[in-house]
Amino acid sequence: MFESAELGHRIPKEDWDREVPVLREALLDAQYDLAGAKGFPVILLVAGVDGSGKSETVNTLNEWMDPRHIQTLGLDKPSDEELERPHMWRYWRMLPPKGKIGIFDGSWYTWPILERAHGRTKTSELDQDMARVARFEQMLINEGALVLKFWMHLSKDAQRKRLKGLEKDPKTRWRVTDRDWRHFDMYDTFRQVSERALRATSTAEAPWIVVEATDPRYQRLTVGKVLLERLRARLDMPAPKPVVMPPAPRVAIDQVNVLKALDLTQRLDKKDYEEALLELQGRLNLLTRHRNFRKHSVVLVFEGVDAAGKGGGIRRITQALDARTYRIHPVAAPTEEERAQPYLWRFWRNLPRRGKVAIFDRSWYGRVLVERVEGFCSEADWQRAYSEINDFEDQVVRSRSIMVKFWLSISQEEQLRRFQERQDTPFKRFKITEEDWRNREKWPAYETAICDMLDRTSTEIAPWTLVESEDKHFGRIKMLRTLCRRLEEEL
Amino acid sequence: MFESAELGHRIPKEDWDREVPVLREALLDAQYDLAGAKGFPVILLVAGVDGSGKSETVNTLNEWMDPRHIQTLGLDKPSDEELERPHMWRYWRMLPPKGKIGIFDGSWYTWPILERAHGRTKTSELDQDMARVARFEQMLINEGALVLKFWMHLSKDAQRKRLKGLEKDPKTRWRVTDRDWRHFDMYDTFRQVSERALRATSTAEAPWIVVEATDPRYQRLTVGKVLLERLRARLDMPAPKPVVMPPAPRVAIDQVNVLKALDLTQRLDKKDYEEALLELQGRLNLLTRHRNFRKHSVVLVFEGVDAAGKGGGIRRITQALDARTYRIHPVAAPTEEERAQPYLWRFWRNLPRRGKVAIFDRSWYGRVLVERVEGFCSEADWQRAYSEINDFEDQVVRSRSIMVKFWLSISQEEQLRRFQERQDTPFKRFKITEEDWRNREKWPAYETAICDMLDRTSTEIAPWTLVESEDKHFGRIKMLRTLCRRLEEEL
Repeated sequence: MFESAELGHRIPKEDWDREVPVLREALLDAQYDLAGAKGFPVILLVAGVDGSGKSETVNTLNEWMDPRHIQTLGLDKPSDEELERPHMWRYWRMLPPKGKIGIFDGSWYTWPILERAHGRTKTSELDQDMARVARFEQMLINEGALVLKFWMHLSKDAQRKRLKGLEKDPKTRWRVTDRDWRHFDMYDTFRQVSERALRATSTAEAPWIVVEATDPRYQRLTVGKVLLERLRARLDMPAPKPVVMPPAPRVAIDQVNVLKALDLTQRLDKKDYEEALLELQGRLNLLTRHRNFRKHSVVLVFEGVDAAGKGGGIRRITQALDARTYRIHPVAAPTEEERAQPYLWRFWRNLPRRGKVAIFDRSWYGRVLVERVEGFCSEADWQRAYSEINDFEDQVVRSRSIMVKFWLSISQEEQLRRFQERQDTPFKRFKITEEDWRNREKWPAYETAICDMLDRTSTEIAPWTLVESEDKHFGRIKMLRTLCRRLEEEL
Repeated sequence: MFESAELGHRIPKEDWDREVPVLREALLDAQYDLAGAKGFPVILLVAGVDGSGKSETVNTLNEWMDPRHIQTLGLDKPSDEELERPHMWRYWRMLPPKGKIGIFDGSWYTWPILERAHGRTKTSELDQDMARVARFEQMLINEGALVLKFWMHLSKDAQRKRLKGLEKDPKTRWRVTDRDWRHFDMYDTFRQVSERALRATSTAEAPWIVVEATDPRYQRLTVGKVLLERLRARLDMPAPKPVVMPPAPRVAIDQVNVLKALDLTQRLDKKDYEEALLELQGRLNLLTRHRNFRKHSVVLVFEGVDAAGKGGGIRRITQALDARTYRIHPVAAPTEEERAQPYLWRFWRNLPRRGKVAIFDRSWYGRVLVERVEGFCSEADWQRAYSEINDFEDQVVRSRSIMVKFWLSISQEEQLRRFQERQDTPFKRFKITEEDWRNREKWPAYETAICDMLDRTSTEIAPWTLVESEDKHFGRIKMLRTLCRRLEEEL
């Protein structure tokens, strides 16, 4: 894969002087078009071997373009905040919004390649990492991003010369560290591992672009020109037509489904409820003060039709928690900032660090529920969301997060009763809108979406707990008890 | 993922009696439409837990439909032929052509799930296998196939009851083996592993459809109805528009490329050539009789512009081989049978078993060369071909195949000289056509395609050898020497 980048490509100074001004102007034009109405995020990775002028290239791009529309993202050691969240969290928080170019000096490739080269992981683990990366990039592309991946390459000889050259000059000697020479001794290993990583992730939509780094002028001009060409091609492309997909398969050919199979007649009388509530809230509070609690984070998801009792359930849980421990994230229509990012971005940003509880009042499941039923996203978008959600939850749980997902179920009649009660009670009236009534009419469509969601996303690592909430007391106690049990198992 | 399939779904006999005739008629209609002009292959997997009536379901589908348009593919132990080729070879040879339904009782999932459940592989290896499977299925879908995956599920209780029931009845006792009970003891492990496999491969285009297998009527009617619904949806869908893709990036901004960097002036005089030829052919012949030769297969790829000397090079190699050892596959336009299959199918079918040499005179690289330049396939098709080819070669090499790929390079002037010579020599005239002259005019477009191909597909596991063939003697000796060295390294 590296042959073309070992030919001694060079750009003479006079060509550089002639071409750079033209390129800069064209890049600026493209940047302004990108910032316009049809803009998309550009994710530009600069990766490659040590000493191959990655930072310098990034700096050049910054000089050439309007820095107001660029985010430069240099990867330092992960912060404590980052270490306490899934590995990809640090990259999610860096993603550029629509209309901006995010330049990554170091990326999601850095760590897996280093780990494998140092023998701390196996080939199968590298492949696993790269498969995850490929899915992540495919998601970015599906969400409209332009992903450009540059690999800066130096032949072994060229790298040796470069390191020696830097060392000789007192002005640049500081840039060559022992680590650089140690890496150089591992050149062949790095080359082999990198090739494997690049091969697994060089897709039609986001191919790796290998750039020879011997001559800085050639290197920077190549990056600039390819960036311009890809930007222009994408800007001038007609808007993609939505992918035509056959509808998702309907499986239950009889009238039985998990929702209908629930026994909604289960109740708990007031006295039993109050006793159990006190006991469970006490247990929960103790659990959050368990010495192992700080080694985990907790993610709670509350989903259910309107008036199913999500708010009440959440309150019964937070009553047992220290206010510094938890944060509630009510999920409504996305903000402008959120709309400029991939769908899952607003949930990634709210993932808790260790020792904290994030409570999602509605969640990322909106995509396969309301957005599906109301047609707020395309068929292809919500159909791919199941895998994206499973991938997301897998990463969350692997980072030692305890995830508990509640589906609160009530009958259509009970919903009507509660709606009427809300309408009749002045201090509850704010809780009911015209939209709630409209949603009610789509009950069967929602039921299908809910069953599909449960089938596709109730997994060993993040199972759904179905909560019979027809009787509020019963539902609340079931949730508290489930939560306590899960924490007891995991701590 | 299995909750919906543990609800005790049932279809009463009277519903069955009423619905089956209607379904059968509709399925037959769909089958005939499928066999028509716009037909596509249907790949239907029936997988799931032991004793869940997989074979019975397959039999039912065969009864219901026209068996002339169905291929039923039961997986037995792999044959010796299959064991000597890449794991996926047996599935490739079973793929149904356009217009047919291939029903797989057992599939590419069987082995990875069994291996993991028995602890013979790690989770990361299962993930690696599933990533490969996902890429394979995505390729099938990109090639136009409809992929339907049914997972037959029994709860632990239901499975126990079923096995006991079968054992009690003297007529069915034979069907329950010790292996079934051993597997039953591993129910939880299997469930966990299967769930992981299903989750990793449940995509928007080919989601898993989990079917409760407790009631055979429910099970079979579900499979039939979902099959009908998916067939109909796909048949009635408008032809997909070609995906609009930006052109592949152009990297070399100077005029330097790997082809131009070759030193085509290298020559070998007749005497040296004849000596080297004899020595190398002798060495090669000995190598094919080396005791380890039978442990490998050999795949040779010859690519190059017209008149570059592929035929002559191949002859100098086969002169040293026993005729039972090798087979030459000249690659021209695909046959009708081949056009009814995914692009790589015709190369998969010609993979050699151990101890054999397959010589491809032109190859799977046609897709990224002639098909790209001449527009015989869409931009999206050839852009994704690089990964598909790398995947293919990876599988071939992993199955202990030695792959050597030659790119024969000549200058445009030398090609002209050879063309004229062909035209002027009566017994060579058959070798030159109008098309050859037309191709010549597209030299620059071919050069771009060749360089891209070398960059994207010259890998550690299957590197390209560039052969300076301006002087035929020099080129032939380089090929023979390269081949001998590679064999010496590997044997």
